[in-house]
Amino acid sequence: MATATEADAMRRAVALAARALGATSPNPVVGCVILDPQGAVLGEGRHRRAGGPHAEVEALAAASAAGHDVRGGTAVVTLEPCNHTGRTGPCSQALIDAGIGRVVFAIADPTGNATGGAAALRAAGVSTEGGLLAHEAATVNMAWLTSVRLGRPFVTWKYAATLDGRSAAADGTSRWITSAASRADVHRLRAEADAVVVGSGTLRADDPHLAVRGQLVEEGEGEGEGEGEGEGAAVQPLRVVVDTHASVKPGARVLDDAAPTLIAVGEDADTGHLPGVDVVRLPRAGAGRGGLDVPALLAELYGRGVRSVLLEGGPALAGSFLAAKAVDRVIGYLAPALLGAGPAALGDAGVGTIARALRLEVTDVARLGPDLRITAFPTTSATASEEN
Amino acid sequence: MATATEADAMRRAVALAARALGATSPNPVVGCVILDPQGAVLGEGRHRRAGGPHAEVEALAAASAAGHDVRGGTAVVTLEPCNHTGRTGPCSQALIDAGIGRVVFAIADPTGNATGGAAALRAAGVSTEGGLLAHEAATVNMAWLTSVRLGRPFVTWKYAATLDGRSAAADGTSRWITSAASRADVHRLRAEADAVVVGSGTLRADDPHLAVRGQLVEEGEGEGEGEGEGEGAAVQPLRVVVDTHASVKPGARVLDDAAPTLIAVGEDADTGHLPGVDVVRLPRAGAGRGGLDVPALLAELYGRGVRSVLLEGGPALAGSFLAAKAVDRVIGYLAPALLGAGPAALGDAGVGTIARALRLEVTDVARLGPDLRITAFPTTSATASEEN
Ligand SMILES: NC(=O)c1ccc[n+]([C@@H]2O[C@H](COP(=O)([O-])OP(=O)(O)OC[C@H]3O[C@@H](n4cnc5c(N)ncnc54)[C@H](OP(=O)(O)O)[C@@H]3O)[C@@H](O)[C@H]2O)c1
Ligand SMILES: NC(=O)c1ccc[n+]([C@@H]2O[C@H](COP(=O)([O-])OP(=O)(O)OC[C@H]3O[C@@H](n4cnc5c(N)ncnc54)[C@H](OP(=O)(O)O)[C@@H]3O)[C@@H](O)[C@H]2O)c1
Repeated sequence: MATATEADAMRRAVALAARALGATSPNPVVGCVILDPQGAVLGEGRHRRAGGPHAEVEALAAASAAGHDVRGGTAVVTLEPCNHTGRTGPCSQALIDAGIGRVVFAIADPTGNATGGAAALRAAGVSTEGGLLAHEAATVNMAWLTSVRLGRPFVTWKYAATLDGRSAAADGTSRWITSAASRADVHRLRAEADAVVVGSGTLRADDPHLAVRGQLVEEGEGEGEGEGEGEGAAVQPLRVVVDTHASVKPGARVLDDAAPTLIAVGEDADTGHLPGVDVVRLPRAGAGRGGLDVPALLAELYGRGVRSVLLEGGPALAGSFLAAKAVDRVIGYLAPALLGAGPAALGDAGVGTIARALRLEVTDVARLGPDLRITAFPTTSATASEEN
Repeated sequence: MATATEADAMRRAVALAARALGATSPNPVVGCVILDPQGAVLGEGRHRRAGGPHAEVEALAAASAAGHDVRGGTAVVTLEPCNHTGRTGPCSQALIDAGIGRVVFAIADPTGNATGGAAALRAAGVSTEGGLLAHEAATVNMAWLTSVRLGRPFVTWKYAATLDGRSAAADGTSRWITSAASRADVHRLRAEADAVVVGSGTLRADDPHLAVRGQLVEEGEGEGEGEGEGEGAAVQPLRVVVDTHASVKPGARVLDDAAPTLIAVGEDADTGHLPGVDVVRLPRAGAGRGGLDVPALLAELYGRGVRSVLLEGGPALAGSFLAAKAVDRVIGYLAPALLGAGPAALGDAGVGTIARALRLEVTDVARLGPDLRITAFPTTSATASEEN
């Protein structure tokens, strides 16, 4: 049985992991805390970015830099230590070499190529225990775990609307339906995502920038620590525009160099006006739907290492994602206002009758300034039925 | 200063008052608890219906029936005792005659004709104190206090919609968007209202019954008491259909005898097919809006003693009420579902641009089964600006 001190350390490890969301794909986020046999913290670490040291190695290094002897100590880690030699050596071996006596982890590694860490540790005489705070650790790694299971990125559809479901007024004006607090929260979602996706309609209407404001990321990074390592430079998500006819104009804000950008176009699109722009050609959607094929888009993004997508709209593209059962989480920002006219927050999702409504389960309702933020998960999608 | 015992008694008096909501108009709801000098409860009462005994008189009678001597006791009452001889005698005199030594009330009587109760009590040597739990007492009497202030009924607009603001699917199906728990809650709102109002569109689409299920009222009545007096017979709200051309069919469910019904029609409507039906002729709405004039409808209802209206829709009529600044409270039942097509929960409310959105303040968010119930109050209406 894990001790209360180990559970506290695991909570800390989950918090450390959360701080790297958006920066580690295609890897998971992982946090690690090293304890001495009396339960004192010797070192902490997290996996900060793909190609960088794993959490266990960073924690061991931190302990060593502080002059601590970790021999006989316990490593508390959110994910089962890996056992393969990828860009870094196997963590199981690093823990064995350091003389760690016990390893407590939250969830087993679900990938084929990295498993076996716990077995390797046990074979070397290290005591191991899995399952501590598994729910918390699975929640922080929800996007990565879903992408492992489905072989496509985890998709969050974010929308902003009035209480009567309008995303703009009759004349198209929409700034600002929601409050500054909600908009700041959207920047946090962007920072945690690997890619932000919009349709060509939103591009034409709003000329959005879609990058994360650096300031917000630094705030998050500094939170409760003061490491001051200057590592807060925003890991910008890939900006993706779904634009069948390559209608994006060369001067569009999304094409600036604040973050990388990918324009998804149809196979026959003329992209001559976009020299130097990263363009991918995708097949058209089948079954009478307009635009590009959503599964093909997600496969392309997955191939580029994207494990979490923030779908920012608009209504037409969101409808296509929902119709393709490619939305795993819905986050709605509801402004306490009524319009009675104007475009709806969600367009055609292939639902014609009430029995086929896309049912969700609301897991959280939060107040953000005057607004409500509603977090919900589909119960009718392939994703959800696999989980039930 | 009121004592903690008096505050407890006031909370009980507010709860007693709440149980009479929907039954007392054009009077307020009032609750009363009589305490002996040591703080023991001698009797309780509430005003149950217009024309029935006032709360103070019922509480004095209850104390007397239990053989208690109330002389020198304290009356704790949610509203300043009345001082006029209406259908019942003045309560101030009843309290003086009974030998009550102290009267604690929550809010002063705001009407012209019933004030002076506290002054009369003081003149007779009774100690009086106002303001105890005034907020709670004002909340339970919100509808009546608003009607006194505005000279029209208090209007609650209730709607049910999906998270994307649809009140039905593309083919018109809508049963059941919201859960049984939400529908039961709507019955409670109906029971608390004096009138339930729908437009002719809802009548044609749904043939609604609009009466309160007796069972639900009895549940509410019995709550935590077991009085078993059989007084739970539902006080049915007046069912009102806003039907310019008298399109209601003689066999409509709303015309049965489960509750009284009023059909509001235009001045030139042919009502020959509705013998024996209570019909009122109203002017047409001005300013390019279709249908009947909303202020004229509310004035007619006020004249009939209606102090609280539950506006059940549909979208078009709700838009007209909002445009007329005749909505005082919004209660939205949001089902955790998405449709992406189908009629919107709210129709044209005269808002063309985002700066003119009808802004609300959310005061409560509750979970009802899987649904969310959002309660909000307009901040841009005449009502609200008077309150600020
Ligand atoms: N409230 C919010 O949260 C929010 C968020 C974003 C946008 N908006 C608003 O939404 C409005 C734009 O609405 P919209 O529906 O036109 O924008 P959209 O969904 O961003 O773009 C739709 C366009 O994307 C292209 N597309 C490519 N593949 C598609 C596919 N599989 N499914 C659907 N579309 C695909 C189509 O044009 P092509 O095939 O020609 O490329 C389609 O017309 C703007 O006013 C914007 O302000 C609101
Ligand atoms: N989700 C919900 O909470 C909810 C609640 C109720 C209804 N509904 C749905 O709403 C749909 C009906 O929609 P609707 O908009 O046609 O219904 P509605 O608002 O109930 O009725 C509109 C009709 O009322 C009459 N009316 C009279 N005076 C009016 C005024 N001042 N302003 C507006 N209308 C006035 C008009 O017809 P005349 O002038 O010819 O009389 C108008 O066409 C149904 O499908 C129903 O199921 C949903």
